[in-house]
Amino acid sequence: MIVIQQHHPEPTPIAGIEHSTWAGAADGLSQLSVWRQTLAPGAASPPHRHDCDEVVMCLAGCGEVHTEGQVHRFGADTTLALPGHKVHQLFNVGPLPLELLAVLAATPVHTEFPDGQTIDLPWRT
Amino acid sequence: MIVIQQHHPEPTPIAGIEHSTWAGAADGLSQLSVWRQTLAPGAASPPHRHDCDEVVMCLAGCGEVHTEGQVHRFGADTTLALPGHKVHQLFNVGPLPLELLAVLAATPVHTEFPDGQTIDLPWRT
Repeated sequence: MIVIQQHHPEPTPIAGIEHSTWAGAADGLSQLSVWRQTLAPGAASPPHRHDCDEVVMCLAGCGEVHTEGQVHRFGADTTLALPGHKVHQLFNVGPLPLELLAVLAATPVHTEFPDGQTIDLPWRT
Repeated sequence: MIVIQQHHPEPTPIAGIEHSTWAGAADGLSQLSVWRQTLAPGAASPPHRHDCDEVVMCLAGCGEVHTEGQVHRFGADTTLALPGHKVHQLFNVGPLPLELLAVLAATPVHTEFPDGQTIDLPWRT
């Protein structure tokens, strides 16, 4: 399919994380995934890394990214550039939902904990 | 830089196309480019292709994509999945600016006309 209707993120088995896959291998792509996610107030992703570049665009809310021993705060109208293989963790540090659009240079996307254990993500990657 | 401020698209030498590069090689990436573009009413991209996957998200307006002999109309809240190497052309077919967010699985991005001639894009790819 070329034109795909966008869907709002829906609850996942990961507490505080809602997700909708907007594009990926099922849409004829071989190099790109687009994920739309919402982190609830107080929620965080696990610390993790991918084997590909990721760009996260913040649409609304207030977040923090922890990576390589550094903490960066971000808000709406900011973009995060996360090169492949670097461990990162995203936090919602504000009172409102943190609305994110994540783009990854792979499909499917390999995701693992810092110790190398694969994370079996509960959505279409 | 990890956290990058997003900028509005600005006029380019290509008539009717405004552009802002939101992420790419200059931000430490090696596999992803993010472009924010505005097509004026009546404007179109040239027919072109990339050597990588592209995903275009329509933020506002009404557009058409012409690819592989087919015409698809799209609007806000739709995503276009454009696999690499396929010629495509985007048109603003509405009365308002067509606001687009394009993600490409390369940086820099190679772009060429259908006859194979390289397009020397007037922005940071």
